[in-house]
Amino acid sequence: MDEFSFIDSIKQNFYHQSGLIKGIGDDAAVLRETSRDIVTAADIFVEDVHFTKETMNAFQIGYRALAANLSDLAAMGAAPAYYLVSIVIPKSWSIDEITQIFSGMKDLAGKYKMDLIGGDTVSGEALTISITVIGLAEKEKTRYRNAAREGDVVFVTGTLGDSQAGLHILTNPGDYLEEEYFINRHQMPTPRVKFAKALVKLPRVALNDISDGIASEAAEIAAASNVNITLYDEKIPVSPSYHQFPSDLQNKWKYYGGEDFELMGTISKRYWEQLKLAAELANTKVTEIGYVTINKYSGTIFQEKNNKKQKLEKKGYNHLK
Amino acid sequence: MDEFSFIDSIKQNFYHQSGLIKGIGDDAAVLRETSRDIVTAADIFVEDVHFTKETMNAFQIGYRALAANLSDLAAMGAAPAYYLVSIVIPKSWSIDEITQIFSGMKDLAGKYKMDLIGGDTVSGEALTISITVIGLAEKEKTRYRNAAREGDVVFVTGTLGDSQAGLHILTNPGDYLEEEYFINRHQMPTPRVKFAKALVKLPRVALNDISDGIASEAAEIAAASNVNITLYDEKIPVSPSYHQFPSDLQNKWKYYGGEDFELMGTISKRYWEQLKLAAELANTKVTEIGYVTINKYSGTIFQEKNNKKQKLEKKGYNHLK
Repeated sequence: MDEFSFIDSIKQNFYHQSGLIKGIGDDAAVLRETSRDIVTAADIFVEDVHFTKETMNAFQIGYRALAANLSDLAAMGAAPAYYLVSIVIPKSWSIDEITQIFSGMKDLAGKYKMDLIGGDTVSGEALTISITVIGLAEKEKTRYRNAAREGDVVFVTGTLGDSQAGLHILTNPGDYLEEEYFINRHQMPTPRVKFAKALVKLPRVALNDISDGIASEAAEIAAASNVNITLYDEKIPVSPSYHQFPSDLQNKWKYYGGEDFELMGTISKRYWEQLKLAAELANTKVTEIGYVTINKYSGTIFQEKNNKKQKLEKKGYNHLK
Repeated sequence: MDEFSFIDSIKQNFYHQSGLIKGIGDDAAVLRETSRDIVTAADIFVEDVHFTKETMNAFQIGYRALAANLSDLAAMGAAPAYYLVSIVIPKSWSIDEITQIFSGMKDLAGKYKMDLIGGDTVSGEALTISITVIGLAEKEKTRYRNAAREGDVVFVTGTLGDSQAGLHILTNPGDYLEEEYFINRHQMPTPRVKFAKALVKLPRVALNDISDGIASEAAEIAAASNVNITLYDEKIPVSPSYHQFPSDLQNKWKYYGGEDFELMGTISKRYWEQLKLAAELANTKVTEIGYVTINKYSGTIFQEKNNKKQKLEKKGYNHLK
């Protein structure tokens, strides 16, 4: 199969989005959106840096790469609509495997009626997947990191640390409880698109997705909003079988383990009950895990544990270091 | 310098586009465009596949990568507005060099008041630059490959083969005429954005950019429009000093040499004079190089040379082959 037949093979036979005027097949795609805002983000994934064939199959690699991008859109309060995929394909990957990567993306994309509208396919040494997503958001309803205010409730969706626990199980074979659950959370995470959408009626929500661990993401909200955030250690939600892992790993994963793709944020106490209701309607677990304060040293994250409050390091993964 | 300081260093201090609501610094960028269509395309460039340090410096690598993307927007009749850049950085490249790549992009972007609004920065083995561009086009004024009609004039901007001639000079040192000119055309090509914009008043134009050689691009128009295209060999425009190269190379480069990033297209004879005028106003050379016919074997490209007409192979670069 050559480049052109491959592109033909991944091209959609029909498109879902009514705003799409031109999909794949010209120099660029064309879309029209007169009423909503356009939200866009890009991520790049490299074999042996972000994923390996040992812990994920090709379908999962594609699924997860797109999930990471959708998580960014969810964190903005935007509904996914389009994606573009540029891929570098080394000789060590078969066209069948590459097709599986695209199937994984398509599977997730289909759940949100997203359309694949462009990209590029080249040969190279390292399998590299570069995705750009385009979402749509009601005007004035995009959710920013700088929207946290003093007195806000800090919340998080789902449970934390599961993705790293899944990776741990994959790379340290043994007897574990709920193996499949944790592995699935690592290989095929659910971006919290529905939850984000359910918040649309709420006036002010700060939102961030957890790709680098909650400590780092909370620090981003704190810095952008010029506030402090305190997290109750005991309230950070974990899965029922999470306690089977060594306690240092439990601690590390829940604060610094990336790629759970849950959402964390803050909202005025006044609207907290409404947010819980919205989460319920979206079938998403949400937990109050802390509170927002201000003082002259704003931008700091604290941990409250056994009634003691101490500064929490932000850490998180840092490329180029 | 770590990942976060690097991102800070490439972040623009101010943005040009009035439609931009949120630039770099949250989970995604947000833009608003209620009157024009959104045009988007993505390309990915890999060291030693698309460029080498031997023939281009870091600044030029960045400039050229963005130029290739802008050429796609021009081929759609869209004005460049935004770009996102995801980059894989190997240890063999210094942060200074990476900053130069971004400076090269910024230099070209600045000419069109484009804003860098997102992307991703990761470490890896091979320098890889993935760019997504977003342009804006007047409604119903995007230019497609399927718009060619029987009797149309076929035209091309600029001169062809120069980029490959420049690469030839760089890789085969010797005595050449106008060395600098050819090298510059290879390293820092000019996307035909102004020309594309100047066509806005014209009702129907088929347009394609020449990234893979005119034979391949003409074939794309012919296939999409279900027509045949005949190119007059003698009329294909080349630079005054182009004839210094061996005639087989001249022929190869002008038909199959990619990356001149000129535009080719077709337009009704009726509007040909108007198109020439528009090109003049945009300070862009334009040449009539052929004509459009139809018959039952549509989708074919012919070459007319010494009054003889023969089929022209499309070739063009094909990854994965």
